Amino acid sequence: MNAGDRVRVDRADQTFEGVLLPSSTPDTLVVKLDSGYNVGIDRGDADVDVLESDVYDVEDAQSEGASEIEFDDDLPTISLISTGGTIASTVDYRTGAVTAQFDAEDVLRAVPDLAGLANYRGRVVANILSENMTPDVWQELARAIHEEIEAGADGVVVMHGTDTMQFSASAMAFMLDTPVPIVFTGSQRSADRPSSDNVMNAVCAVEAAKSDCAEVLVCMHADESDDRCALHRGTRVRKNHTSRRDAFETVGAEPLGEADYGIGEVPDVSFRREHAERGETDLALHDDLETDVELVKFTPGTDASRLAAVGEDAAGVVVEGTGLGHVNTDWISVVDDLTDAGTHVVMTSQCLEGRVCDRVYDTGRDLLDAGVVEGEDILPGTAKVKLMWALANTEDVADTMATPLAGEIQDRSVPWE
Amino acid sequence: MNAGDRVRVDRADQTFEGVLLPSSTPDTLVVKLDSGYNVGIDRGDADVDVLESDVYDVEDAQSEGASEIEFDDDLPTISLISTGGTIASTVDYRTGAVTAQFDAEDVLRAVPDLAGLANYRGRVVANILSENMTPDVWQELARAIHEEIEAGADGVVVMHGTDTMQFSASAMAFMLDTPVPIVFTGSQRSADRPSSDNVMNAVCAVEAAKSDCAEVLVCMHADESDDRCALHRGTRVRKNHTSRRDAFETVGAEPLGEADYGIGEVPDVSFRREHAERGETDLALHDDLETDVELVKFTPGTDASRLAAVGEDAAGVVVEGTGLGHVNTDWISVVDDLTDAGTHVVMTSQCLEGRVCDRVYDTGRDLLDAGVVEGEDILPGTAKVKLMWALANTEDVADTMATPLAGEIQDRSVPWE
Repeated sequence: MNAGDRVRVDRADQTFEGVLLPSSTPDTLVVKLDSGYNVGIDRGDADVDVLESDVYDVEDAQSEGASEIEFDDDLPTISLISTGGTIASTVDYRTGAVTAQFDAEDVLRAVPDLAGLANYRGRVVANILSENMTPDVWQELARAIHEEIEAGADGVVVMHGTDTMQFSASAMAFMLDTPVPIVFTGSQRSADRPSSDNVMNAVCAVEAAKSDCAEVLVCMHADESDDRCALHRGTRVRKNHTSRRDAFETVGAEPLGEADYGIGEVPDVSFRREHAERGETDLALHDDLETDVELVKFTPGTDASRLAAVGEDAAGVVVEGTGLGHVNTDWISVVDDLTDAGTHVVMTSQCLEGRVCDRVYDTGRDLLDAGVVEGEDILPGTAKVKLMWALANTEDVADTMATPLAGEIQDRSVPWE
Repeated sequence: MNAGDRVRVDRADQTFEGVLLPSSTPDTLVVKLDSGYNVGIDRGDADVDVLESDVYDVEDAQSEGASEIEFDDDLPTISLISTGGTIASTVDYRTGAVTAQFDAEDVLRAVPDLAGLANYRGRVVANILSENMTPDVWQELARAIHEEIEAGADGVVVMHGTDTMQFSASAMAFMLDTPVPIVFTGSQRSADRPSSDNVMNAVCAVEAAKSDCAEVLVCMHADESDDRCALHRGTRVRKNHTSRRDAFETVGAEPLGEADYGIGEVPDVSFRREHAERGETDLALHDDLETDVELVKFTPGTDASRLAAVGEDAAGVVVEGTGLGHVNTDWISVVDDLTDAGTHVVMTSQCLEGRVCDRVYDTGRDLLDAGVVEGEDILPGTAKVKLMWALANTEDVADTMATPLAGEIQDRSVPWE
């Protein structure tokens, strides 16, 4: 059995017939079906019969640079943008090396299952581990996405490390008005692991990018099985587990939608709740950021001088308070000093779920008197990104923080649920 | 209908007959049953028939200080310790004032449903909003609990504000070896609200304190109904919602146990998993704490100088990293400098669920080389408390942080679940 052979593969209840292609991992068979669609099959579960040897010259096709990927007028064009991370560091089967530089063909070789779903444009914005993501890379990414949509992309898929994906997705949600979907995806397990989630996540992300939901989404495994990705609103999602493939969860709501996945089938994308529709919003870029914004988490025993030191030179400070939005009483005069000096102080809650409400208890009322801005039910990390954006793009920062711009504030307006 | 009348109350499917007592709120009827048990009944749902007027002189009983509460040899003795918070600030029906000072009789007047469940000792350690809780109050609390158990308490209930309850419960779990249950409870809605959770939480906490689980527990509403409290291990629990009554959740596991509640019935306490048994451990107090410990949350755009400033004078720093325990590469040399200078740096994850594992990616391996201590799956807030305790009570801090002492580290030892 060699690349180029015509094979029949039986796996579980399914049979695939086509030409065997080189695979990026020894655990996976890649078969080019007669439909032109490429499918990746777990080798461990599969029975393979060689029907005819050497029917297709893989090396020749590659060495001549002859593209297997021809533009198909009937398919939308999806821009694949890589920033790095596990999903982008797929093993190149030609060299055996781990690589993150790629064009559309590299993507299709790494994830053959993407073939036939769309026409692709490939673009590398960064090649970094996502813990090294910075606001200036967010700006480059926003500009790249803007260019791709301006150039006619019907949707954008951003490949990103999972560690800080939620922050980058939030940044894009505030920096871009978009008429098409912008879908972040990544991988919790690299492509060389049998349980890798990179193929399913990437395939579902492309389908989500073809959908009518013109928002910034995060597309990752919905549960422990391999049959469903959740589509989270970028500003409401959180990586809630260090290692599970279904680590990402929408906080305080069900995910916006999902993509049902079956090997060799086109995922079925559906949405549960209202969302911005394709074409509803004109493309616009607001890429200024005030980067001098800090996030401080209050825990018992944290001296008020910590807040003073952090806030001293900052344009804005997001506080992760306790409960409804509280800190030690000693902190209140420091908040007062900071706001008097022109620093914007936004209160969020380390509870993560529920809304900040500083009108219920004395501590909260004193904080409001000291000039704190209530962060509604915005997640603390999202609040930091929004404050960076609000300080650079709007006049009335407090009003901007209280106004839902990208789904970051949810409808419920009462603190008691 | 007046206090002192003999009444029959029909509510839902239940009928209660006894003497009407003064109630702390107009929404609740308090009836002293013939069994001696007092029951609180929602007035809105109840039909009341006066069977006989003025059979009991409530004022006389009170003014003479004649206790309705006599020591019952058949019942265990529970020590009720108040630190403040919503649950302790019940409305005194005699004065109409909000009060937090109390003795056992005050507790029983505020929460009549507690009568008949135990003999009580009352003690006030503090009267503060829990956002003002500090490590020195933890030390007072630990000493008070130690004294109560030494004096013969069969269990301890600590009434505490909900904002920082998880931190105080963790502190007690490390500072005390206990042969009896120590149960924290609180209230998300004050006693003057119809949906107050203070009665059910207090009643269930007392039953949990009578149980055989000699651990530090948190007892709060398990769900949105009024029929079940969850019993969480103090080191694994987290307030995950700003306002809901069932805000508290055990992270990464089911709660250790639960207390089924029915009005007028003794709650049924059960445990799902292995726990320390009553009498298994000798009472001991280890109340030293190194308070010079900081917690820093890493988010994109946070300069490494922040870590340097925070760690400069600290004995220990807990970092809330991303994913498996990562920070921006720029932070690694600062970690190196801090550990060289003798500051202990412990890595936890802002994901909250799952285990830190710095052996998977380069960033993590470099952090380990720089001397970071992996915080296993300890919650970041619990890790701060444990590090305070470890620095003051043990020689090998890194080894202590890696050793499960009070259920703060769970069994699963692999990073991939």
